[in-house]
Amino acid sequence: MNSTPDAPLSHIPRSLVSAADYAAAAPAHLTEQAWAYFSGGAGDESTLRHNREALDALRLQNRVLSRLEGASTKCTLFGVPYAHPILIAPVAYQRLAHPEGEVAMATGASAVGAGMVISTQASMLLEDVAAATQVPSWFQLYMQPDRDHTRQLLARARQAGCAAIVVTVDAPVNGIRAREHRAGFVLPADVSAVNLVGMQTHASFTAPLGASPLFGSGLLTAAPTWRDLAWLRQQTDLPLLVKGVTAADDARRAIEAGVDGIVVSNHGGRTLDGQPGSASQLPAVAKVAAGQVKILVDGGVQRGTDVLKMLALGADAVLVGRPAVYALAVAGALGVAHVMHILRAELETAMALTGCATLADVGPHVLAQAP
Amino acid sequence: MNSTPDAPLSHIPRSLVSAADYAAAAPAHLTEQAWAYFSGGAGDESTLRHNREALDALRLQNRVLSRLEGASTKCTLFGVPYAHPILIAPVAYQRLAHPEGEVAMATGASAVGAGMVISTQASMLLEDVAAATQVPSWFQLYMQPDRDHTRQLLARARQAGCAAIVVTVDAPVNGIRAREHRAGFVLPADVSAVNLVGMQTHASFTAPLGASPLFGSGLLTAAPTWRDLAWLRQQTDLPLLVKGVTAADDARRAIEAGVDGIVVSNHGGRTLDGQPGSASQLPAVAKVAAGQVKILVDGGVQRGTDVLKMLALGADAVLVGRPAVYALAVAGALGVAHVMHILRAELETAMALTGCATLADVGPHVLAQAP
Amino acid sequence: MNSTPDAPLSHIPRSLVSAADYAAAAPAHLTEQAWAYFSGGAGDESTLRHNREALDALRLQNRVLSRLEGASTKCTLFGVPYAHPILIAPVAYQRLAHPEGEVAMATGASAVGAGMVISTQASMLLEDVAAATQVPSWFQLYMQPDRDHTRQLLARARQAGCAAIVVTVDAPVNGIRAREHRAGFVLPADVSAVNLVGMQTHASFTAPLGASPLFGSGLLTAAPTWRDLAWLRQQTDLPLLVKGVTAADDARRAIEAGVDGIVVSNHGGRTLDGQPGSASQLPAVAKVAAGQVKILVDGGVQRGTDVLKMLALGADAVLVGRPAVYALAVAGALGVAHVMHILRAELETAMALTGCATLADVGPHVLAQAP
Amino acid sequence: MNSTPDAPLSHIPRSLVSAADYAAAAPAHLTEQAWAYFSGGAGDESTLRHNREALDALRLQNRVLSRLEGASTKCTLFGVPYAHPILIAPVAYQRLAHPEGEVAMATGASAVGAGMVISTQASMLLEDVAAATQVPSWFQLYMQPDRDHTRQLLARARQAGCAAIVVTVDAPVNGIRAREHRAGFVLPADVSAVNLVGMQTHASFTAPLGASPLFGSGLLTAAPTWRDLAWLRQQTDLPLLVKGVTAADDARRAIEAGVDGIVVSNHGGRTLDGQPGSASQLPAVAKVAAGQVKILVDGGVQRGTDVLKMLALGADAVLVGRPAVYALAVAGALGVAHVMHILRAELETAMALTGCATLADVGPHVLAQAP
Repeated sequence: MNSTPDAPLSHIPRSLVSAADYAAAAPAHLTEQAWAYFSGGAGDESTLRHNREALDALRLQNRVLSRLEGASTKCTLFGVPYAHPILIAPVAYQRLAHPEGEVAMATGASAVGAGMVISTQASMLLEDVAAATQVPSWFQLYMQPDRDHTRQLLARARQAGCAAIVVTVDAPVNGIRAREHRAGFVLPADVSAVNLVGMQTHASFTAPLGASPLFGSGLLTAAPTWRDLAWLRQQTDLPLLVKGVTAADDARRAIEAGVDGIVVSNHGGRTLDGQPGSASQLPAVAKVAAGQVKILVDGGVQRGTDVLKMLALGADAVLVGRPAVYALAVAGALGVAHVMHILRAELETAMALTGCATLADVGPHVLAQAP
Repeated sequence: MNSTPDAPLSHIPRSLVSAADYAAAAPAHLTEQAWAYFSGGAGDESTLRHNREALDALRLQNRVLSRLEGASTKCTLFGVPYAHPILIAPVAYQRLAHPEGEVAMATGASAVGAGMVISTQASMLLEDVAAATQVPSWFQLYMQPDRDHTRQLLARARQAGCAAIVVTVDAPVNGIRAREHRAGFVLPADVSAVNLVGMQTHASFTAPLGASPLFGSGLLTAAPTWRDLAWLRQQTDLPLLVKGVTAADDARRAIEAGVDGIVVSNHGGRTLDGQPGSASQLPAVAKVAAGQVKILVDGGVQRGTDVLKMLALGADAVLVGRPAVYALAVAGALGVAHVMHILRAELETAMALTGCATLADVGPHVLAQAP
Repeated sequence: MNSTPDAPLSHIPRSLVSAADYAAAAPAHLTEQAWAYFSGGAGDESTLRHNREALDALRLQNRVLSRLEGASTKCTLFGVPYAHPILIAPVAYQRLAHPEGEVAMATGASAVGAGMVISTQASMLLEDVAAATQVPSWFQLYMQPDRDHTRQLLARARQAGCAAIVVTVDAPVNGIRAREHRAGFVLPADVSAVNLVGMQTHASFTAPLGASPLFGSGLLTAAPTWRDLAWLRQQTDLPLLVKGVTAADDARRAIEAGVDGIVVSNHGGRTLDGQPGSASQLPAVAKVAAGQVKILVDGGVQRGTDVLKMLALGADAVLVGRPAVYALAVAGALGVAHVMHILRAELETAMALTGCATLADVGPHVLAQAP
Repeated sequence: MNSTPDAPLSHIPRSLVSAADYAAAAPAHLTEQAWAYFSGGAGDESTLRHNREALDALRLQNRVLSRLEGASTKCTLFGVPYAHPILIAPVAYQRLAHPEGEVAMATGASAVGAGMVISTQASMLLEDVAAATQVPSWFQLYMQPDRDHTRQLLARARQAGCAAIVVTVDAPVNGIRAREHRAGFVLPADVSAVNLVGMQTHASFTAPLGASPLFGSGLLTAAPTWRDLAWLRQQTDLPLLVKGVTAADDARRAIEAGVDGIVVSNHGGRTLDGQPGSASQLPAVAKVAAGQVKILVDGGVQRGTDVLKMLALGADAVLVGRPAVYALAVAGALGVAHVMHILRAELETAMALTGCATLADVGPHVLAQAP
C-alpha cells in the first residue's frame, strides 16, 4: 500500500487469470485510504467473510454427456436482453480507483456486454457514465432528505437512458468500518459525489461522550421508511428494484409495494456486521418472490462457479462490485473488461460441466448434496 | 509486555476505534503479571474462546425501512433508569491497571451513563468508588467465612448508595490459571483488597505431593451453599442477583431462593475450563426466568453487535469486564468512557440496521437462521 | 521448483516412507511448469481439497482378535485376477515427469502387481507401454471428433492386449487451471500425444473480449453425448468403463447404456471446481450400481487407509494418479513400485487392524460412526 | 531435539504448571529418535488428533452452591482402594526417557498414589518395577507366540504382586509410524525388553517389492484370536482387562469371554490411523458394559477436566501415557509425581466447580449440551 500508488497498467500480465489475482494486485494501484475504503467491511468484517463462506459451502454437481450445442448465457431483464447475467454493482467514488472512474468502468463493462449500476455517489456525472456504454445502465438511488432532489435524480437517470432504478434501503446509517477509520479515510479534494451538488446532505455528526451516539443525532429522522418506498414507486415508471433486502418478510412487503425486483445484498458486508452470507439468505427471498419479481444478488462473487451457485439458488442475475473496482484500479477499462470476461468464461465452463446449455437449465439440481 | 509499563494516555489516538483495539494496546500499559492476571483464563482457556465462538456463531438479520424516529437504548433495572443496558462487570484489583483504579473506572463509566458493579476485591474503598459516579453502582459480594463480615459489607454497600447486590457463586475455589502461574503473579505491595481489611481470609494452601491437592485442604468447608444463599436473601432488602449460574436447574433454584436477578456467567473463563460460551447457555436460563427475574450476562462481549445478540437471546442487560479494564489501563477514565461510548454507538447502529427502535423491539427475530 | 530439475533418484532414501513424502519431494524433480500441470486443480482448487477432506472426515473402526491367517488383498476385475485393488490412474504426458514416461510407470506398477490405465494422451506409444507390464493394462479413451479415429484407438488398444476401455466423459472442455496458466505451461517440444498423431484435434481457441468465451467457440459441437456413448458401446467387446460420473442419475443412465463399470471421479479436481470429494459421492453411485457393474473411484487417495475407506463405501478398486506420478518423477520405475508397495502395505495393515482377512470382509461396518 | 539430550532436572521450574508444559519441555530431554518414538502416531497421526478433538468437543456444565465438605476422589478397582482414578498407562522401553526408566516412573507414581501398568516391553525387570511402588501395579501382557512364555509372564506378574492383568489386543501388527521411520528409530544397545529374554519373538520382516507386504509375511499366523483370549482367561485368577477395544460388539464378546474390565483405547493413535477419539467411542462400550465390568480409557488425557469428561462418559478410571513419560524425561520420579499431582488437582477443582463431591456424583449431567 502506498501514498503514491502505481499507475494503471495498459496491458494484462500473465499473472492475472482470476478475480482473486486482481484483488491481490489492487493495493499497489490504490492509496492506502482508498484500499481501506473499497476492501473494508463493517465491524469485525464477519459479514464479509460469511459472504465467501456461504458460497464456498455450496457444492456443484457435475453432469456428463449432455447435449451442449448452441449453448448460451443470454438473459432478459425487464424486457432488455443481456449477453450474460453478470452486472457491475453500484460502487461509490470510483475515481478513487482510477482517474477516469465510472466512465472507464462503463467502457470496460460495455466491451464485454456487462450491464452497470451507476451509484448515486458516483464521482462522475451519471449522464457521462451512461453515455460511455452500449449496454443500458441502471441507476442506484439513495433517497434524499428532500423529495424534490430524489425526483431530480430520477428524471436525470431516465433522461440519460437508464433502464432501471435500484433503490438502496439497507444503509439508513453508515456501517462502522474500522479499516477506514484507522486509515483516516476522507475523500480527496478532487473526488466527490458530483451528482448531488446543490442537494442537502446529512451533516457528519460526532456525538459528545455521554450523549446517544446515533439515536441522539437526528440522523435517523430522515431515514427512509416503507411509506417513502410507496411514494417512490409512484415517481417512476422505470423498473424499480429494492436493494439490501435479506429478510423474507421485507421481501414480501417490498413486492406488495410494487417493486419489480429485489437485490439480495448485505451491502458487501459494509453496514451490519454479523449477517449471514448473501448466498445463505437468497433462497428464502427467492421463494417469496416465486417468479413475481426479478431476484438479483451480490456478496462475495469472485468466480463463474459463484455466479452459477447464485443462479441455482434462485437469482436471475448477479452483481459484482469489488472484483470490478480492483480490475479498474489495476488496468482501467481493459482490466474491467478482462475480469468480466474471466467471470463469463468461468460461468460458461461451469455450465458446460454441469450440463446446462442455457440459464433456464440452471436450477437446484446443479448443487450437490454431498459435502 | 514490560516491567515498566507505559503511562496511561491522556488522549485517544486514531488507532483506537474498537474494544479489540484497546485489547491490543493494553499490554504496553500493564506489567506482564497484570496482563497475565487480567487476560488469562483457566486451564487451556477454552471457556474464554467459547465465549467468543458462541457469539461469533450467531447471525443478525437486517431489516429495512423501519421507522426509527425517537429511537432509544433506555432501560430500567430494579426501578432505576439507565441510559443503556451495558454495565461494567465486577473486576478485582483495578489498581493493577491504573493508579486511580476503581475510581477512574467509575468516573469513566459515569461519563457515559454506564452502571458499574464494584468488586468485593476492589483495590479502593467501595465508598470512594460509589461516590465517583452519578449512576448508581452495584456491589459484588463474595460471601465471607464469617457471616458478620458479610453483613458488614452489605451494610457498607447500602450506606454507599449501591443499588443492588451481586453475589458471586461460581468460584468456591480458584480456577487453575496457567498464565498467572507462569508469570509469577502476586499482588504488588500497594494493591490489596482494601474493603476486606480485618476480615478472615482463606490462607493460601499448597498441598504436599501425595496429599489431596484441594479436597484435603479444608478450603471447601467454608464454600457457600444454597443454605447460605437463603440466609443472605434475608440480610438485605436491596435487589439481589446471583452471578455465575449457567445451569437451568440452578437458575430455578436461585429463583425459588428469592433472588431478583441472575447473571449468566462463566466468570470470564477464569474458573472452570471447558464450559460453553455464555451466549450458548443464556437462552435456557432466560427461559427458566420467564420474566420473573432480570437476566444479565457477561462473557466475551466486545462489540455492540454482541450486546444486541445477548439481548436477543433473552438478556435484559450485559456486563463487560476486560474491555473496560483494558481501556482503563490504556487511557484511564477517558479510555473507559470512550470504549463504553463505542459499544453504545455500535449497539445503536446494530439496532437501527435490524429495525429496532427500542430495547423492547429486540427479540429472537433479530437473529438470522441462515449460517 | 526449477527450470533444471534434479534427475530421478536411483535409490530410495530413508525420508520417503509415504505417498505424501513423494509429493513433497516431487517439485525438485519437475520443471515449474510440469509441477503446476500435475499438481494443479481447477479454479480455487476446492474440489482438490474436498477430495482429501471427504476421506479425512471418515473414521475407521478397529476390530480385535479376528482370525487373519491366510489374509489376502486379491481381487478379480472383469475376469482378470489382480494381486490388489490399487491401479494407476490415467495421467497424460508422463514424459513430463520422467524421460521414460509411461513405460517407466508401467514397469514400476508391474513390479508390484498393479494394473495401469494408459491415457489417450500418453506421451509414449500405447503398444510400448502395454508391452512393459505383466499385468494387463487398460486403455483410457477420449472420444475423438472423427469416429474413425476413435475406432482406430480401440483397435490398437485391443491389439496391444488392453483388458478394458475407460472412456472419460467429464471433460468436454478443459478446466480453468490457474496454476498452469500462471506458470505458462505448454508442452515442451519433445513431449506430445503420440498416439493421436494424424488425428484431428480441436484448435486452441481464445475468444476476443466481448465474445462468448466458450459457448461461442464451437468447441462444444463435438462434445460427446449419451448418443455417442451408445455408439461406443457397440464398437468394442472389451469391458467398457465410463469415467467421471458422480451423479446417481448419470450412473443409472450409463448402466442402461451397457457399460461394465463406472469410475467415480472428479478428474482429480481438474475440471469443475466446487465439487464434493469423490468419497462423498461414491456411496450414491455404488447404491445405483448395486453390484450390476464394477465401481472404481479416484480422488485424493494417498494412504492405504484411504483405499480401505473407498472399498468400505462401495468401490471394487481404486485408482491413484498424482502419488504415482510424483514417485515416477522422484525415482522412476523404482519410485512407482515403492509407492504402490507402501499403499498396499498400508492397506494390509488397515485390513488387519479392522479385522478384514479379504476384500469381501470389507464393508460399511469398517467405518466408525463416532467422530 | 538433540543427540545429546539434557539430563533430567532435579527440581521443578515455575514454567511447568501443566501436562502440556511437560510435553513442550520433553524434546530437550530426549534423543530425536526417542522423541519420535514416544510422541509419534500411525499414518498421518489423525487418530492422535482425534483423541484430543473428541475431548475438546465436550463441554462441562458448572453447578453452584453444592455442598462439598468431605469431598474425595477415592475409588476402588477390583477390590483395591486407590486415592484417585488416574493410572499410568503401559508404555514400553521407559529407559529411553530416563536412566532409571520404569523404576523411576513407579517411584513417582507411588508418591502421589497413582497406580501403574507395567508393560510387557518394559526395559527393567517387572519385579523391580513392582517393588518400587506402594500402590499395587498391574501388568500389561502381549500374548506370546509360545503359550508357555505367556504363562511364565503371568506367573511372574502374580509373584511380583501385580493386582491385575491387562492384555493388549489391538496391535497384532505394528502401526505404520512415519516419524519413527524417518528418525531412523532403533532401540539403543542398552535398552531392551528385558522381561522377554529367552522368549521367541517375531523376526522383523521386510517384504520384497511385489510380495504381499504384510499378509505374505506369516506375522499374522500367531496373532491372538478370541480363542486365545478364552485360553488366557483360564490361566489366571487375577482380574483380567482387555485393552484396545472400541467396538461395542468386541466389548460384548470380551465380556462374554469373562474379562473383568475393558480399556477403551486406540493405543494412543499408534496402530490404526483414522480412528475416532477414545472419548467418542467410550459411551457405546460403557453402555454395553452396563456396570458388569470396569471400564478404563486412555487417549489424549492431558487435564483433570479431561479425566472428568471421561468419567462422565462412563469410565471408572483413566490411564495417562505420554504426559507421564514426558514428565519422566524432564524430571524423573519427581516430574512424574508432579504431573500426576497436577492432574489430580485439576480433577478436584473441576469436580468442585461441577458440584461433584465424590466420583459417584459424576455422571452425564456434568457435560453441558450447549456448544
